[in-house]
Amino acid sequence: MLQREQLIDKVRSVFQSYGFSPIDTPALEYEEILLGKGGEETDKQIYAFEDHGGRRVGLRFDLTVPLARFSAQHIGALGTPLKRYQIANVWRGENTQKGRYREFAQCDFDTIGTKSMVADIETALVIHDLLVALGCEDFKIHVNNRKILTGLLASLGIEDQTVPILRCLDKLAKVGIKDMTTEMLTIDRVDEAAVASLLTLTEIRGSIADIFKSTRRIVTNNALFTAGLDELEELIHGLIVAGVPESRIHLDLSIARGLDYYTGNIFETFLEALPAIGSVCSGGRYDQLAETYTKTELPGVGASLGIDRLLAAMQEIGVLKPMQMGAEIFVVFFDPDRRDDYIRMTRQLRLAGLRVEMYSDPKKIGQQLKYANRRGHRFALIAGSNELDQGHCQVKDLNTGDADNVSLHDGFGTLVDTLKEKLSAL
Amino acid sequence: MLQREQLIDKVRSVFQSYGFSPIDTPALEYEEILLGKGGEETDKQIYAFEDHGGRRVGLRFDLTVPLARFSAQHIGALGTPLKRYQIANVWRGENTQKGRYREFAQCDFDTIGTKSMVADIETALVIHDLLVALGCEDFKIHVNNRKILTGLLASLGIEDQTVPILRCLDKLAKVGIKDMTTEMLTIDRVDEAAVASLLTLTEIRGSIADIFKSTRRIVTNNALFTAGLDELEELIHGLIVAGVPESRIHLDLSIARGLDYYTGNIFETFLEALPAIGSVCSGGRYDQLAETYTKTELPGVGASLGIDRLLAAMQEIGVLKPMQMGAEIFVVFFDPDRRDDYIRMTRQLRLAGLRVEMYSDPKKIGQQLKYANRRGHRFALIAGSNELDQGHCQVKDLNTGDADNVSLHDGFGTLVDTLKEKLSAL
Repeated sequence: MLQREQLIDKVRSVFQSYGFSPIDTPALEYEEILLGKGGEETDKQIYAFEDHGGRRVGLRFDLTVPLARFSAQHIGALGTPLKRYQIANVWRGENTQKGRYREFAQCDFDTIGTKSMVADIETALVIHDLLVALGCEDFKIHVNNRKILTGLLASLGIEDQTVPILRCLDKLAKVGIKDMTTEMLTIDRVDEAAVASLLTLTEIRGSIADIFKSTRRIVTNNALFTAGLDELEELIHGLIVAGVPESRIHLDLSIARGLDYYTGNIFETFLEALPAIGSVCSGGRYDQLAETYTKTELPGVGASLGIDRLLAAMQEIGVLKPMQMGAEIFVVFFDPDRRDDYIRMTRQLRLAGLRVEMYSDPKKIGQQLKYANRRGHRFALIAGSNELDQGHCQVKDLNTGDADNVSLHDGFGTLVDTLKEKLSAL
Repeated sequence: MLQREQLIDKVRSVFQSYGFSPIDTPALEYEEILLGKGGEETDKQIYAFEDHGGRRVGLRFDLTVPLARFSAQHIGALGTPLKRYQIANVWRGENTQKGRYREFAQCDFDTIGTKSMVADIETALVIHDLLVALGCEDFKIHVNNRKILTGLLASLGIEDQTVPILRCLDKLAKVGIKDMTTEMLTIDRVDEAAVASLLTLTEIRGSIADIFKSTRRIVTNNALFTAGLDELEELIHGLIVAGVPESRIHLDLSIARGLDYYTGNIFETFLEALPAIGSVCSGGRYDQLAETYTKTELPGVGASLGIDRLLAAMQEIGVLKPMQMGAEIFVVFFDPDRRDDYIRMTRQLRLAGLRVEMYSDPKKIGQQLKYANRRGHRFALIAGSNELDQGHCQVKDLNTGDADNVSLHDGFGTLVDTLKEKLSAL
């Protein structure tokens, strides 16, 4: 949790540095707000029930749908572009596995109210900077554009099957070509020629420029297809202009994102050392998400960092640095009769700006020091009745075992100075 | 939300400085864990339902019950005393009003596994330091001890009615003596003499020493009553020893805390400027909370800061300071053809450590500056094609309206230095 809190602080600071502001929305939304937004599978995973007022409600399964509802309600007062972030928990009633939980935090950021590619480029830059800020240097941002796939399907005359086809294609990396093909062929009016076309698209290899060149040749008579390629090219161009290393950008025409609401550029982010844990930061452009709540057109683009999955991955890779405990100083409760002295000492050190924990019970000193060692306190203050009467106290370094006697004759001034000196010398 | 995030950061830092560590528990607990822990009224407010695996679950209504369950499960591995904090949302299906919501955050801290009064004293000190850290100087911590009231009821032979009587007494400040008396008399075997005894207890006035003296005379033959007074006296003595101003301690024998699980010292905290909003930080000692989950005795003491209620109160009192936006620098998207230049400029300033937002669309400059003003950006960078070709850019102070031309001939070095200078001079 200490690690997690520190990571979240870093995420927040990246968001704010780009001008995103925090919002909060309730965990419970009306069920009708949640249903039908993330696709059938997501619908099934919603924790839904009737509340005390007889209303059908559900726990949010992501932060994008609540944002769409929020934007539709408040965009008039807030103006556009609305740049917001939200770091909060979401719930999905699914089977748990490593890095995949029923309750987990998402760190979402979105720009609402503009179709500008500048917002798409910024979204990818924020993803990039988040990963770097969190200490992950080796990652790839996979980019694609929904219009390319839907354009291809339109050219094959099966655009009305886009949702099941994309959902099936989304499993490609997980289940492999064979199983995906079998599943794809069960979809109405999808034949082997269609699957072959789709696979051609996802199998193009080469430099980014080469991929664009080859892809443009596949479908030449569909405006959506061409628009998707143009947008994607503009996105990648912007990232290169901003100085993002090309090695961190992966033009991946096979990613589709499971959620139904994306309409343009889409992003997934994989750690080189642990691709199997899945994308740790995903998102994209969704231009019609709020259309069920408002007649105002509310295009948006954003992404979501799965902090809990990333944390699981970082633990596995071993890139998390060990954390320092909150309080460095530990006051031993040595002599039961001198409790007031320990309370006073603890308080005075605290008022001088030190972080101090006093043990609660006058147990054996060995037991107290064992506790302090386990918790990672650095310095223990030990004083029995004799020491207190003689006006001094022992300062013990719990890492090295070194102990000094420090005078208490001037109140706690010398003790405070000594401790601050020792701490700053660490 | 910016204010709220900042307050929560301060809360966390106080907790950690006392040696408390963060934990997290799921929002959903098994319903049987939640039921019967906070009293009948709380039971009614639980959002409960059946999950996808056919299990009865509910959203937690506080963080203490989950902590009891957590402690019973993990205390063997963690050891005692267990000092933990948890900052998380809780849910109660009740009627909303100012500072009282259906979903709200609690900031809980608890010490589990010791009956030592040192932990009680520390709990009150943390409450004290939290309020001060959050900028509330004028507050009173009301303290009482459950044993005093239950001891009195035992001496009257009605200890089996403790729960309804305490719940009724808890409403005293809200409904007044008359209505409380009427309600109290509806409780089985409670007569007017009993109510009079209870009221005597709550009506004693004077200095802390006087109150103790008078109270001790009311019941002389009940060990629980005497133990309660002893514990309370020890608590207050410890706070005075630690240097807490007596003016911030209020010995208030009328407070009972609604929740059933308290057994010893209890705390409530009221803001002098807005007592009507209710207690902003409450807690106490509960020695049998985990007894339904484990045979190990797990005494505990802690308190909960209601950050959302406190925030509502601070807004009303007007003690919240206005917040600075995240990004200080605003890059105007002036000439559509020079988008790459603005992206590059934004990126370079950011890499130099500045916090920068670039506008997403090449709208009219007035509109862009209006947006920047509303959001609180301090400096706008304005450069059209001519300026960029000539190698300079305008830096406009959005507060004063002053504008300087800054050279871009050395890349962005001069611009970075200028902006850093201007920012540090604010």
